[in-house]
Amino acid sequence: MKAAGPEALEEMAEAECLEILDQHSLGRIAVVVDGQPQIFPVNYALSGRIITFRTGSRTKLSNAPGSKVCFEIDGYEPSAGAGWSVMVQGVAIDATDAFDDVSWAARAAAPWPLAPGAKPFRIAIEPSKITGRRFRHAG
Amino acid sequence: MKAAGPEALEEMAEAECLEILDQHSLGRIAVVVDGQPQIFPVNYALSGRIITFRTGSRTKLSNAPGSKVCFEIDGYEPSAGAGWSVMVQGVAIDATDAFDDVSWAARAAAPWPLAPGAKPFRIAIEPSKITGRRFRHAG
Repeated sequence: MKAAGPEALEEMAEAECLEILDQHSLGRIAVVVDGQPQIFPVNYALSGRIITFRTGSRTKLSNAPGSKVCFEIDGYEPSAGAGWSVMVQGVAIDATDAFDDVSWAARAAAPWPLAPGAKPFRIAIEPSKITGRRFRHAG
Repeated sequence: MKAAGPEALEEMAEAECLEILDQHSLGRIAVVVDGQPQIFPVNYALSGRIITFRTGSRTKLSNAPGSKVCFEIDGYEPSAGAGWSVMVQGVAIDATDAFDDVSWAARAAAPWPLAPGAKPFRIAIEPSKITGRRFRHAG
């Protein structure tokens, strides 16, 4: 990452995005249902470049696998006036008991859902693009 | 809202969702670009039931207006083991200088973007559905 000026917006390299993804556990997934995007918070884990989470939801389970999804995390530190966000675009896979490489990688990670309820299904996101931005504002 | 048991997940009524939306200023919008959802953090304001934010982004500006978008906020209090999320589904409108009711309402609110850069455009979300969930986990 290049040094930021007093007010700057900069792109982060994928390696830095992955580092930040690995340090957090709560993000949001967007799925598209009949042309309408929907956003759900999920507790996730990272396995290599694979985002994975558990779900019991029919919405996420029946709409996500095989379709394009987006995963995002962000943060803001008021004292530093600094914020950042990381976005993972990709395809969702039902990794509950599939034998492909992405599903194996997904099952190697252990996301811990905070919300109650049975979550017997495992979704993995195979990323096509991992991007991030960081900003700091003046004053 | 009904009283929650030691481990409960419950839906919130629209009135409660609006109250929570009014108490926050940082959320995320999902737009769909060529079938691929993308999520961006935005500083927003609420005007009645209208979510509004400023942008300078070609992505949000050129893809959002007239199309279905989703806006979401969420929170988690580790000490209470309690979390919540509010989701606004609807259609985005370029409210920068339009004269319809939604645009007027949007311009009555004053979102303050934290990220730097010129943000001359104003987007409004006309909601079709406002939903929320709250959970508490045992232990």
